[in-house]
Amino acid sequence: MMHINLFLFGCGHHNAAWRHPDSQVERLGDIRYYEEMAQLAERGKLDAVFFADGHATNNITDGPRWFLEPVTMLTAISRATRHIGLVSTISSTFFTPFHAARLMASLDHISGGRAGWNVVTSMFDVEARNHGYEAMPGHAERYARAEEFIQAVLQLWDSWDDGALLNDRAGDYVDESRVRQINHRGKHFLVDGPLTVPRPPQGHPVLFQAGASEHGRALAAKHAEAIYAVAYDLPSAQAYYRDVKARVKAAGRQVDVPILPGLVTFIGSTEAEARAKQRALDELLPAETSLRQLQLFIDQDCMGWELDAPVPPLPPLEAFTGPKGRYATVLRIIETERPTVRQLLGRLAAGGGHCTMVGTPEQVADQMEHWFRNGGADGFNLMPPVQPDSVQDFVDHVIPILQRRGLFREDYEHTTLRGHLGLARPGRQ
Amino acid sequence: MMHINLFLFGCGHHNAAWRHPDSQVERLGDIRYYEEMAQLAERGKLDAVFFADGHATNNITDGPRWFLEPVTMLTAISRATRHIGLVSTISSTFFTPFHAARLMASLDHISGGRAGWNVVTSMFDVEARNHGYEAMPGHAERYARAEEFIQAVLQLWDSWDDGALLNDRAGDYVDESRVRQINHRGKHFLVDGPLTVPRPPQGHPVLFQAGASEHGRALAAKHAEAIYAVAYDLPSAQAYYRDVKARVKAAGRQVDVPILPGLVTFIGSTEAEARAKQRALDELLPAETSLRQLQLFIDQDCMGWELDAPVPPLPPLEAFTGPKGRYATVLRIIETERPTVRQLLGRLAAGGGHCTMVGTPEQVADQMEHWFRNGGADGFNLMPPVQPDSVQDFVDHVIPILQRRGLFREDYEHTTLRGHLGLARPGRQ
Repeated sequence: MMHINLFLFGCGHHNAAWRHPDSQVERLGDIRYYEEMAQLAERGKLDAVFFADGHATNNITDGPRWFLEPVTMLTAISRATRHIGLVSTISSTFFTPFHAARLMASLDHISGGRAGWNVVTSMFDVEARNHGYEAMPGHAERYARAEEFIQAVLQLWDSWDDGALLNDRAGDYVDESRVRQINHRGKHFLVDGPLTVPRPPQGHPVLFQAGASEHGRALAAKHAEAIYAVAYDLPSAQAYYRDVKARVKAAGRQVDVPILPGLVTFIGSTEAEARAKQRALDELLPAETSLRQLQLFIDQDCMGWELDAPVPPLPPLEAFTGPKGRYATVLRIIETERPTVRQLLGRLAAGGGHCTMVGTPEQVADQMEHWFRNGGADGFNLMPPVQPDSVQDFVDHVIPILQRRGLFREDYEHTTLRGHLGLARPGRQ
Repeated sequence: MMHINLFLFGCGHHNAAWRHPDSQVERLGDIRYYEEMAQLAERGKLDAVFFADGHATNNITDGPRWFLEPVTMLTAISRATRHIGLVSTISSTFFTPFHAARLMASLDHISGGRAGWNVVTSMFDVEARNHGYEAMPGHAERYARAEEFIQAVLQLWDSWDDGALLNDRAGDYVDESRVRQINHRGKHFLVDGPLTVPRPPQGHPVLFQAGASEHGRALAAKHAEAIYAVAYDLPSAQAYYRDVKARVKAAGRQVDVPILPGLVTFIGSTEAEARAKQRALDELLPAETSLRQLQLFIDQDCMGWELDAPVPPLPPLEAFTGPKGRYATVLRIIETERPTVRQLLGRLAAGGGHCTMVGTPEQVADQMEHWFRNGGADGFNLMPPVQPDSVQDFVDHVIPILQRRGLFREDYEHTTLRGHLGLARPGRQ
């Protein structure tokens, strides 16, 4: 069975989504906008809704990026839904482990065991300068901190045993022998514990991770219980899938970690209709905005580039110090398609180089099945180019096909995110 | 008109509340427990629900203190209510200003302008050791940090003007001239801004503060928009009220800052019934627990004290380095009543020395009116000794009397917490 999350973002993942006449850009501060989309995803029996997070506004004239804070959004969504998982990104660079453990444990209790934590290390200096740093710590330093952060969070969740709460009115509230300090003293953190929140319903909220770099893959192999991957095409998906599954096994873990590449879909009743939807959106895209976005991805001065000329040569992957996955995708597109600058911008405008599938519901279901059956994916992190239209197209037309083929659940069989993902509830470690 | 908040805490503010046969101690992880009490408070047209916060478990065998994290709780409550304000405590010692500003702004958007922030500096070393400190910074240092913290938070809320969002599909998403960096570089914080969340519906979520110390009063005079006070009796309430109102005026502020002392009520259809309720709860109290609580308040080794002997002499207020307000109350009880240790424990068991009113609904309404008409209070922060029973008694029997006397609103006239409290919406400062 596939696992499918809905990754909600602004008005949609296409940079021009908010410019669409039907966009709900006026509702980005309205929690019901997000609740309605989560309800739609729940109607489609999806595994989870997924939120990224950022700690700075970049290029805000170009379109919405962040608005509401993700843990508060997901808490509200938890009260408007019954089954769907709730995955929030929390940065290991800007929080303390106690804050992260506490927020996630609280969401897990409030939602009855539906919380997931997508751990990221963050990347931009503009974000760092909102949280006390003059600049971001280096890549290796961030990942060393993330490793220690995760260990402290897991220990905090384990600081209360199941059954620690006695509620014995004539005796003790808690069995003290089942609650303990963690006394963490590491290079980056000092945390005594125990957590103020008793053990979460899932034991541990599900740990998601995304990371294409060597450090990112190493962290995923050791800790991730589900992975949000970036793969432009099936060969790159397969290479990543093989590598990370092997690393998980090499780390001695028995768990089958679902790998879920990001997926942008344009769906129409004919292929031509789907392509027209995509083109209509691309045409709403101001060239300057896209060039600035590209600049952010590849760390080159692109603003003077000729739109209809071939993309100039770029430094090799090894020389690039930003997020490797996206940069590798750009190099791959250039290598395999020799695009003009304008063509490259089109490719990147929706989902920043994640896989794009365009066609009828059957065609999209076919491609998804092809990836699923050929070692490219255990499912997908859906990145709707326009919300809620693309979500609706997917839920109403692709999900029923996947269900008929026996590739996706007909209904929820579990009440927790761990249940949906086929992950066991961890004991104390 | 009075302002009345409901301060929810565990199973109630009486240390033995959870031991009561009717207590809902088994539901402390169930968000509906809190939603139901907030709905009850909203039925009584109360101004707000109010949550304290702590970052460590103390003496957990004795009874519940913390469970769910307050901002997530209040977010859920916001979706189960329509009018009532939502006040969360957030520590200026353990968060960054960006986190605090973002969480509160998000809650304010989600709730349609009902968020309040009770700023505290926190106090216990066991809390500090969950967030990277070996011990708490000193009192003066914490308040200096709080002052800088508040300034940064206010600037972050002001970093987006009203009307900054253009949502112009053919042009810009945002009017860049109405969004700005704050470039804060202080002794404790570095924050560039702008916030990721556009200006909150209330402009600024309402700033609550509580603090009896010199530093606390100075901070309140400068920044507080509503004050949660501790006053054991009317003379101490009047002294605090006069002093803080004068300080607010001296600070050059035009605003009338509501002062709301904590209030514990035991209500019965006769005075004898009310006293029996109080006694029944006191009798559930294990002496050792109460002595340990007292030890925390007065920083003396109390465990060997004889229960039926007079309270031993205590050091003067000036020599005490912990929270001054509670200590002053203990000194005042000892001075005016010469109690035995057991009698003192009884006084402190519910609400830790806040005012307690016991009697029929008319008697309690009379005392509240007396405080209100005689310069002791602009309203109260209700501290129900047992939840939900004490809340129900108050909402069903005291509120209607206050309404008949024209002392409390018959219905909500506003949609925001600022509206309920009679506070103007601030412009950019």
